[in-house]
Amino acid sequence: MTRPPLSPTERSTIRRGKERAASERAELDALLDAAVLCHLGVVVNGAPVVLPTCFGWSDNTLYVHGSTGATTLRTAIAGAEVSVAITLLDGIVYARSVFHHSANYRSAVVHGRARLVEDRDEKLRALEVITEHVAPGSWDYTRGPSAKELAATSVLALELTEAAVKIRRGPPGDDEADVTEDSCWAGVLPVRQVWGEPEPCPLLPDGAEVPAHVRRRQAP
Amino acid sequence: MTRPPLSPTERSTIRRGKERAASERAELDALLDAAVLCHLGVVVNGAPVVLPTCFGWSDNTLYVHGSTGATTLRTAIAGAEVSVAITLLDGIVYARSVFHHSANYRSAVVHGRARLVEDRDEKLRALEVITEHVAPGSWDYTRGPSAKELAATSVLALELTEAAVKIRRGPPGDDEADVTEDSCWAGVLPVRQVWGEPEPCPLLPDGAEVPAHVRRRQAP
Repeated sequence: MTRPPLSPTERSTIRRGKERAASERAELDALLDAAVLCHLGVVVNGAPVVLPTCFGWSDNTLYVHGSTGATTLRTAIAGAEVSVAITLLDGIVYARSVFHHSANYRSAVVHGRARLVEDRDEKLRALEVITEHVAPGSWDYTRGPSAKELAATSVLALELTEAAVKIRRGPPGDDEADVTEDSCWAGVLPVRQVWGEPEPCPLLPDGAEVPAHVRRRQAP
Repeated sequence: MTRPPLSPTERSTIRRGKERAASERAELDALLDAAVLCHLGVVVNGAPVVLPTCFGWSDNTLYVHGSTGATTLRTAIAGAEVSVAITLLDGIVYARSVFHHSANYRSAVVHGRARLVEDRDEKLRALEVITEHVAPGSWDYTRGPSAKELAATSVLALELTEAAVKIRRGPPGDDEADVTEDSCWAGVLPVRQVWGEPEPCPLLPDGAEVPAHVRRRQAP
């Protein structure tokens, strides 16, 4: 499927740090692939509430899910506007001045009205997308959702149309006057997420083999 | 300074996953120490906006800063309610069923009205707190903020009083019926953030030594 280009509106047009705005859809796709968590913002009783949650995405739609009882999800379901931020920290920028200290990161902020996924087939497909994003290989490997489990789960869909992508890469942007021969050290300390050794469930028989789809992820 | 205990209000009382609620202030402190980024939520024109930003904290106050021109910060400064989420992903929970897949994480969601820091001494102290949180050792090592830089920076303070802390640790919580002798593999794939090799600014002389406060952080 061809993905539409991002269409920034007034509020998704980046005013601060325009040089960091990345309009290319490919940057958004790469960020969505790399991140596991997003932060979902809704307005509850006039006040903002921000909650971390897992997500999945397919083509032009981002999916989140949760218990049917959760207030945040119920609010978003009621047709309210939501904001979803996806962020990856890539490094700390050590500058020659306190002022120019910064972080290298990739971030996307998506705005829109979330849609409750009610069609059973789309709901199953959305749960597959979320599961495969969070735990690739698990959808086919494990027991699928029962009717009761499906009923206890709400799925929200948000179009990836109104999105502001910001990326900072590279060295510090110091003032010229601070860049002297004998200046203090400046540079970037990269940070990245790494997977550890799988920890088997204590209820497994001893020596149960870690399946390929988990092992594969762990490899560098 | 003795820190007051967390005082959950109606909206900071955790309804979903009560077993994950951690009321102890020590858990919040440890999370704040370990995270670099937070997600700040405000309401702009009736809609939520969630933005990633660095933060710092001291005693019972969380500080964020930004350009005086940023809409989000201007909104928060106007006395509006804000929500700040601090989240660390610790692992992916592979269960025997799709439904019980989960993530191990530590999260705090703080609610309240942010206060614009106007006192010059408190503003400098807040910037020191943020700088030392993001880049420990940098405040004394690098050039401090000029009057112009100070004027271009807004600092917001948020009391750490109304906070909901949620933590999930440990193995999957599978249904008893799924835990059989010949069940599929289940367990946790841990994830953690690691620092990479410092990347010197290209404008430094060749062979410039990485200072101890940066080296120290990189060490495991």
